[in-house]
Amino acid sequence: MPQILATTDADFETRFADLLSMKREDSPDVDAAVAQIIADVRERGDAAVIDLTAKFDKLDLAPERLAFSASEIDALCALVTAEERAALDLAAERIRAYHVRQMPQDAKWTDPEGATLGWRWTPVSAAGLYVPGGLASYPSSVLMNAIPAKVAGVPRLAICVPTPNGQANPLVLMAARIAGVDEVYRIGGAQAIAALAYGTQTIAPVDKITGPGNAFVAAAKRRVFGKVGIDMIAGPSEILVIADADNDPDWIALDLLSQAEHDESAQSILITTDAAFGTAVQEAINKRLQTLDRREIAGKSWQVNGAIITTRDLTEAAALSNRIAPEHLELCVADPEALAKDCIHAGAIFLGQWTPEAIGDYVGGPNHVLPTARSARFSSGLSVMDFLKRTTMARMTPAALAAIGPAAEALASAESLEAHGLSVSARLQRLNDSPKKTG
Amino acid sequence: MPQILATTDADFETRFADLLSMKREDSPDVDAAVAQIIADVRERGDAAVIDLTAKFDKLDLAPERLAFSASEIDALCALVTAEERAALDLAAERIRAYHVRQMPQDAKWTDPEGATLGWRWTPVSAAGLYVPGGLASYPSSVLMNAIPAKVAGVPRLAICVPTPNGQANPLVLMAARIAGVDEVYRIGGAQAIAALAYGTQTIAPVDKITGPGNAFVAAAKRRVFGKVGIDMIAGPSEILVIADADNDPDWIALDLLSQAEHDESAQSILITTDAAFGTAVQEAINKRLQTLDRREIAGKSWQVNGAIITTRDLTEAAALSNRIAPEHLELCVADPEALAKDCIHAGAIFLGQWTPEAIGDYVGGPNHVLPTARSARFSSGLSVMDFLKRTTMARMTPAALAAIGPAAEALASAESLEAHGLSVSARLQRLNDSPKKTG
Repeated sequence: MPQILATTDADFETRFADLLSMKREDSPDVDAAVAQIIADVRERGDAAVIDLTAKFDKLDLAPERLAFSASEIDALCALVTAEERAALDLAAERIRAYHVRQMPQDAKWTDPEGATLGWRWTPVSAAGLYVPGGLASYPSSVLMNAIPAKVAGVPRLAICVPTPNGQANPLVLMAARIAGVDEVYRIGGAQAIAALAYGTQTIAPVDKITGPGNAFVAAAKRRVFGKVGIDMIAGPSEILVIADADNDPDWIALDLLSQAEHDESAQSILITTDAAFGTAVQEAINKRLQTLDRREIAGKSWQVNGAIITTRDLTEAAALSNRIAPEHLELCVADPEALAKDCIHAGAIFLGQWTPEAIGDYVGGPNHVLPTARSARFSSGLSVMDFLKRTTMARMTPAALAAIGPAAEALASAESLEAHGLSVSARLQRLNDSPKKTG
Repeated sequence: MPQILATTDADFETRFADLLSMKREDSPDVDAAVAQIIADVRERGDAAVIDLTAKFDKLDLAPERLAFSASEIDALCALVTAEERAALDLAAERIRAYHVRQMPQDAKWTDPEGATLGWRWTPVSAAGLYVPGGLASYPSSVLMNAIPAKVAGVPRLAICVPTPNGQANPLVLMAARIAGVDEVYRIGGAQAIAALAYGTQTIAPVDKITGPGNAFVAAAKRRVFGKVGIDMIAGPSEILVIADADNDPDWIALDLLSQAEHDESAQSILITTDAAFGTAVQEAINKRLQTLDRREIAGKSWQVNGAIITTRDLTEAAALSNRIAPEHLELCVADPEALAKDCIHAGAIFLGQWTPEAIGDYVGGPNHVLPTARSARFSSGLSVMDFLKRTTMARMTPAALAAIGPAAEALASAESLEAHGLSVSARLQRLNDSPKKTG
């Protein structure tokens, strides 16, 4: 049974606080092992990666086989059905169209003092994308990570995807090809992250690493952060659905289960203004759980982490939503736009009952890499910005320096940074010595 | 003596690589101590903060004295001279004007399939700004951190600034007042970061923490990351000046020294196309080091970490600059805009000889919190974006779902996520059952 709460319960605040602070993820401490793997890859390069791949993936590689060859990729892509290919193409096209609109503009202006100011965006020179192998090897994640990088203009994009026992997922390779990925390596784990961050004889280092992974991958990303940029460390997935009584309970049940089926640590929460509707959704979930392929995973997630919360009204629902700060927020109410205005912390909002969250996982256009574990309070989903950096620009004229330089001198003096002040005053001195000079 | 290199030297590549990989910072391992401090603050709240402040800052506080009172702030601000106040006002006004232009736009559009897509930016609800005490207690840093937060619309902004032995810096309080800071606490170290992240009886928790600090502060920020957002972990400051022979050696010397005087770990590098000019700058530095207040710090920084590199031409200079990826880049050449196009990795670029870097520290307008230690390859300086987060929005119509839903079903099936597919197909089924319904 999921937790059943109502804001009218005497113990609501305690139980809701418990729900919020619930620890859903086992985080095995693999940090020491990961530190050793990274040191090994830094020391021995390809040889270390090959040894670790033999050990963890039961796969013997030579340096020239670390990367998939073009003909290997051709052969794997040939296994993708026409329907799958068309679906990937449609998803890629929609993701690209959405992310193109995110591209920020450069700026340059001259202010009344004569200072020319602005900024400039440039892409990172090389990015690496980690793709898990096995059960969570999702072609949709390849599109969601690779397309923003390519839209941002990253000239070199490398993927690492482990192939345990040599098993590769054709759709992952096809998605990489559609997204314009430049290099695909059949390696995984902390050794792949180390190879991307520090480079080996075969793999050139990158500047930014994104993509989901297991505890080893997450620990390795934390460790190489600073040497390279990383995206967020993703936690288990979450959905919050706010629904009034005017919904089909089965639709809402499926939306909650589509999160729960990801893994046992996933969390699905329903907030409704109608307790009877909550009960109907619970019944619909029980019915679906009888037949769903992944019923064991989804059932466990729903029973352990799920919740149905009844509120007095939508205002209360929005307030709870802001405390949860969900990764995914579905608003299945009469006026979802109005409710969205009050829901200020969420990774992605799905408006209205015709927008199941699964649309956002695949073909909606927005990114499906989103902040988890309440981090939507302070962070955003993956975007082109993750593959760009901003350089600020300033140019003074002698007149501009004369206008604002004295204030800099005053502050430098207040901060006891004499050379700072002198670097301004030496220039202003020249202006005083030769007032005609305009540099 | 700083390192003297020329790209024509036989051993240039080796020596330049050594310069790039030079470890300038002692990072004492304070992680265990910091973990204990954070645990203590989480456990005992105010009492722990008060004990730790007595221990580290030799200052006895009661809970009601953790925050500066309005009258205390009044009294401290009264100590600021009119000239200092005017300089802070001018700096604040220019920083505000620059950062207002950074505010990103929301977006909303409807695509040909009828899907309404977009995104929305919202500020974090509360931010905390750390300000070091003592030597590095800079009012300019208060402006540079607090103004972007307030421009972003952060409703609650708290500052923590330690006051060892009760000594407060009046300019820091004045800068906080000018920037519109809401709360100022006289606490520091890891205990301040823990209080901001987890809250105490007196201090409400925040969602984002920014600002520089010592090894304890940096380690605490790393540890609370995830619970709250943090800005970068800043390393020692750096400047790279690219200058041709048509510059005053003393100006360039002062620009290099204004970085070196920050601390011994700072790094100043000159790249010039004229070896004789490099020698002239070295001589000018030696002369200035005879009288500079902070000559011990600046001298040590320059001797240990400084370098003068002669290149064949500006193309070579830009290539080296991109490998250094400097925090600050000054381009003192005839056509700085042209050279800037080739310098693709830098935190901030200062164009032309009338733009000393110190202008950017105080009154230029752009932020002075910038990526260090080569991280300009993948990250950007502080901006309003650090205090905003983006929520993606999507709304399907029944027709839009009918158009793109089947592709989502195909991909869900390919990824073996049955409930994902069912959440779409259950809705499409309804459309097929009653084709007139438009939801």
